[in-house]
Amino acid sequence: SNMGFGVLGVFLGLLLEVSTHGPPAMPRTSWRHQDLDLMEFSEPDVFNYTTLLLSETGDALYVGAREAIFELSKKNVTIRNNKVAWNVAQNHMVMCTNKGKSKERDCLNYIRVLQVVDDQRLYVCGTNAFQPQCDYLNLADFSLSGQSEDGRGKCSFDPSQSFTTVMVDGELYSGTVYNFLGSEPIISRYSPSQSLLRTEYSTSWLNEPSFVFADVIREGADRGDGEDDKIYYFFTEVSVEYEFFSKLLIPRVARVCKGDLGGERTLQKKWTSFLKAKLVCSMPELNFVFNVVHDIYILKGKNWRDTVIYGIFTSQWSNVGFSAVCAYSITAVEEVFSKGKYMQKATVEQSHTKWIRHNGITPSPRPGACINNRMRQQNISSSLHLPDKTLQFVKDHPLLEDPVQPIGNAPRLIAKVSYTQIVVDRVEALDGRLYDVIFTGTDNGMLHKSVVFDGEVRIVEEIQLLKNPEPVKNLLFSSETRSLYAGSDSGVVQAPTAFCGRYRSCLDCILARDPYCAWDRRTATCVNIFDAPKQRHGTLFQSLNGDADQCISKDKSASARVSVKLGSSAELPCVATSNHAHMFWKSNGSVLTETSSFLLVREGGLLIYSVGPEDQGQYDCWSVEWAPAVGKNYTRLVASYVLTLDLPPRSSHQPQH
Amino acid sequence: SNMGFGVLGVFLGLLLEVSTHGPPAMPRTSWRHQDLDLMEFSEPDVFNYTTLLLSETGDALYVGAREAIFELSKKNVTIRNNKVAWNVAQNHMVMCTNKGKSKERDCLNYIRVLQVVDDQRLYVCGTNAFQPQCDYLNLADFSLSGQSEDGRGKCSFDPSQSFTTVMVDGELYSGTVYNFLGSEPIISRYSPSQSLLRTEYSTSWLNEPSFVFADVIREGADRGDGEDDKIYYFFTEVSVEYEFFSKLLIPRVARVCKGDLGGERTLQKKWTSFLKAKLVCSMPELNFVFNVVHDIYILKGKNWRDTVIYGIFTSQWSNVGFSAVCAYSITAVEEVFSKGKYMQKATVEQSHTKWIRHNGITPSPRPGACINNRMRQQNISSSLHLPDKTLQFVKDHPLLEDPVQPIGNAPRLIAKVSYTQIVVDRVEALDGRLYDVIFTGTDNGMLHKSVVFDGEVRIVEEIQLLKNPEPVKNLLFSSETRSLYAGSDSGVVQAPTAFCGRYRSCLDCILARDPYCAWDRRTATCVNIFDAPKQRHGTLFQSLNGDADQCISKDKSASARVSVKLGSSAELPCVATSNHAHMFWKSNGSVLTETSSFLLVREGGLLIYSVGPEDQGQYDCWSVEWAPAVGKNYTRLVASYVLTLDLPPRSSHQPQH
Repeated sequence: SNMGFGVLGVFLGLLLEVSTHGPPAMPRTSWRHQDLDLMEFSEPDVFNYTTLLLSETGDALYVGAREAIFELSKKNVTIRNNKVAWNVAQNHMVMCTNKGKSKERDCLNYIRVLQVVDDQRLYVCGTNAFQPQCDYLNLADFSLSGQSEDGRGKCSFDPSQSFTTVMVDGELYSGTVYNFLGSEPIISRYSPSQSLLRTEYSTSWLNEPSFVFADVIREGADRGDGEDDKIYYFFTEVSVEYEFFSKLLIPRVARVCKGDLGGERTLQKKWTSFLKAKLVCSMPELNFVFNVVHDIYILKGKNWRDTVIYGIFTSQWSNVGFSAVCAYSITAVEEVFSKGKYMQKATVEQSHTKWIRHNGITPSPRPGACINNRMRQQNISSSLHLPDKTLQFVKDHPLLEDPVQPIGNAPRLIAKVSYTQIVVDRVEALDGRLYDVIFTGTDNGMLHKSVVFDGEVRIVEEIQLLKNPEPVKNLLFSSETRSLYAGSDSGVVQAPTAFCGRYRSCLDCILARDPYCAWDRRTATCVNIFDAPKQRHGTLFQSLNGDADQCISKDKSASARVSVKLGSSAELPCVATSNHAHMFWKSNGSVLTETSSFLLVREGGLLIYSVGPEDQGQYDCWSVEWAPAVGKNYTRLVASYVLTLDLPPRSSHQPQH
Repeated sequence: SNMGFGVLGVFLGLLLEVSTHGPPAMPRTSWRHQDLDLMEFSEPDVFNYTTLLLSETGDALYVGAREAIFELSKKNVTIRNNKVAWNVAQNHMVMCTNKGKSKERDCLNYIRVLQVVDDQRLYVCGTNAFQPQCDYLNLADFSLSGQSEDGRGKCSFDPSQSFTTVMVDGELYSGTVYNFLGSEPIISRYSPSQSLLRTEYSTSWLNEPSFVFADVIREGADRGDGEDDKIYYFFTEVSVEYEFFSKLLIPRVARVCKGDLGGERTLQKKWTSFLKAKLVCSMPELNFVFNVVHDIYILKGKNWRDTVIYGIFTSQWSNVGFSAVCAYSITAVEEVFSKGKYMQKATVEQSHTKWIRHNGITPSPRPGACINNRMRQQNISSSLHLPDKTLQFVKDHPLLEDPVQPIGNAPRLIAKVSYTQIVVDRVEALDGRLYDVIFTGTDNGMLHKSVVFDGEVRIVEEIQLLKNPEPVKNLLFSSETRSLYAGSDSGVVQAPTAFCGRYRSCLDCILARDPYCAWDRRTATCVNIFDAPKQRHGTLFQSLNGDADQCISKDKSASARVSVKLGSSAELPCVATSNHAHMFWKSNGSVLTETSSFLLVREGGLLIYSVGPEDQGQYDCWSVEWAPAVGKNYTRLVASYVLTLDLPPRSSHQPQH
């Protein structure tokens, strides 16, 4: 048994090392799909449930799929309240296939835009066989108006192309491509009352971008300087400022001002406020460079300054699939856009061009800045009044030199999986503190739930969200229903944010360190704190550093009796409740090792496959788990057996046949 | 059984895909250390057996370790013929520890240079507690002359620092650092009769290099233009010509001319022939960039133009450990050095500098070129006569723009391991063709043996060379003894180049596709073709594309009889002879699947752990292996059993007790 503890020590040392160095993290608990009973929706012959929209007012989750739009209940997505089909007209289909596109894959209508116009209507767009079209969806009778509009610049042509869109005050902001070939990227604003405002067609502005996200951050109301709300775009593009063996990708944040109307002469019908900067998500000392952004979630605070931007990144050289989560403060982003140095193109010895820092004089007002009170005092009340010098400058200098650094100057989390989607919930735990809970969907249908605790992140749970190992294509979160909604090519899944009830013991409940979960001493169950009425919080025990000393051990359960014939096999089941736990068996007080060839310690338990008289006795399955934040080991008896041999019939007192 | 074949098809499909796409390759056969009986040498309390030198004339392998030099028999390294100790003097030790170095690790004498001077003497250098010293080793009595010389510029200060050296015609060429701090890199030539010739101390010449290899290529004799022999250096350094988030590493080849004497005024006592270029080893389309070179082997042909340079590379972002092998033709290297465009430093807008192609006029004679007959006609018979313009140019332009592309423009091999050392043997097989056999040592004590066949490479064998999983630090090959010699921190190992005798069947011998091995029809054994006398080659069968149709099957061996008691377990061993083979079991004609919980198909065989009457019958273990080059499947019966139940004593005719 001395040796047994030696082995245990080495094992715990390894665990400790992993958790100290961070990458890569391993989820503590794994939940299988078949054990969870999640709510799922799909219809036969309908695919690509990838565009999701949660109604803020009613009980609706709108789902844009291939050639169909659904209205599901957001309380229970298995309930379908409405459906409308939206197929491609025959002439469009013929044109599409004539251009060499695939009839089965490309020349269909993939719904990619679902945006709220008002209480009665959604604005919806589809790829429509590479001829994007938009329409209004009447919510009262769930019908399309039938007066479809040109979707160019609002929706992608290609269903597999990267694309993002957001509706702000009735105007549709998109990041997509403007032509059939996909060669002309565009960030645009479509408004029913104005002409399209867009980016300049230039590699300085956008260089083969892959758009991942766009959203408004409403600064206006909170600040005294009269500055505008801003729409932020996130994408990966090909670098112009670095030189590398091959194309080097760079993750970017770009922004435009909501009130932008374009310039009067220069930048007519173009953004006068388009600026972009590099997002940093790397650990250069470990040669971890995460330069491809895949998804963004903006966690909005009460004040815009509390806004935190969460992103998931991989590496361009991700031949293995490491992902990183980085978090950015909106004030760090704002600082770069409002004060950062610009980059400029310089010519070297006639032939080469190079992007370097602009050290000369910058025109005033600051190029790319939103209209604010100070400008208004100078009689510049709209972008149409901006001087040509400022406009010409921003046209040539859309890129800022200073990068946006992540909070803590490092990734929050590195995991050896490919994350595709992210949402974040900020949870107030029983200790009154706020915890950011990060939900990340993977390319093989899993969901990771990670919690930020004292600046460090641990993966609490790994949930098999989708039945098949396919990518999570969209992920939404509703604080109202406390649910997550995942869209994939084959359906929609609704999952709760926590599975507290599945932790069967106090130790398991506390060691999970899940801010949603607490141990109810009264009922001796692990409960969701948001399900428990406030007045009952007194009986709840939560300890997010994993200090489980208050868990009173009830481990002294009776041993099960197992009786087998001489020479036959005995199976003693024992299932680990945590991937972080180390399991070991003791027999008659000694730790068992796999030295005997008749003994097999398997994941699900112990197998003795030719039981002899010497194998009789007590068998205990123990779990030991390290709680790193409190530096304690918690040991627990998981299963207990007494193994005996069936006496041969001859020696028994049974009647003989 | 229908289902069984379906599964098999999927499996073979996967294998096929891997072999078509190349990366990463899996060795066909794995040999364990304990099964091989390799010859090993080490002495108690002596470590770091990392400097090896094979005698070309005598039966000696010289080994430089920590504070000791050994002479072993190269026919059998377990035989130690000589040893000399070389310790650090007390005053040196004190100075070293006073400078803050570790007494146990740094302040010792690590032998790092062993070079042949003549038949009687070796030139040897050691780090000598961070004050490198050199001496002559008298081979007659294996004693040091005791008149030690300053080793600065010839040997590294730090035992862990990268370092390379080669002796050419009595002159010692090194790549190392020149100062205690390790900040001044140097490529130098030490000659007893002349003053030290060295590189300029400038980041344009060497920028934080890690030296890996240097050797001479004797071109002089073969070419009519009177050009000199050249010494080639291989190293990784920090790029000056690219811009990246952080330091970008670049693998380089550099060269100097043997006859270089430095310049008369400009470049006095400096190389006038130092030029360097980038080595390419990448697959940009797959985002595989291998930009760190670890070791080089130069496979010399009869004519210098046939020389092939083999290198092993990893990626700077090798958080996982992929390695690549690239091969370069010496003529491609020569082309870049003799005709390539130079790069030059240019200033952009006062502040930045950038390396771009030099498009202006290049002085004549060509900067960095070796002296040849044409120059001699212009009265330039030595580098001392070179005009100042040429010298000033090469001083400012040591870097060539054109990179050296690998043969086939892609890595020969990509494997998911970290290679540390490489040697290559060119083998003439029975078909009269030449095959390059690549031996690569790994960071965990393994040796991979790979064969180039029709431009594609397959890993034939994986050999556990070292007992413990430590890095192979040095690897030599002798065609005379047909042995490999590996040095590690803990000892020296000698291994044969082939293990033909371990292939027990014709199918195994042929499917290995090892150019050293052939099937001897007369003795029915797999033999090394170099062990077989030429007149017996008629009875040998070799087929390096893996077409084994000529192997006459002798599989119809008798089934072993296994008899067990009811309810007890039966183990039926079956060991795969190839990692590329798929193993399956058939019982009474049907393919077995692990559907029964009483059945366990393990790596070493089949385990039935509660045998019932229905389990009785015939059990056959089959191996199926795909020979991709001929598009054939070879199926083979590996083991065969008849399982019966022991009849209970009652029904037997044995006397009852």
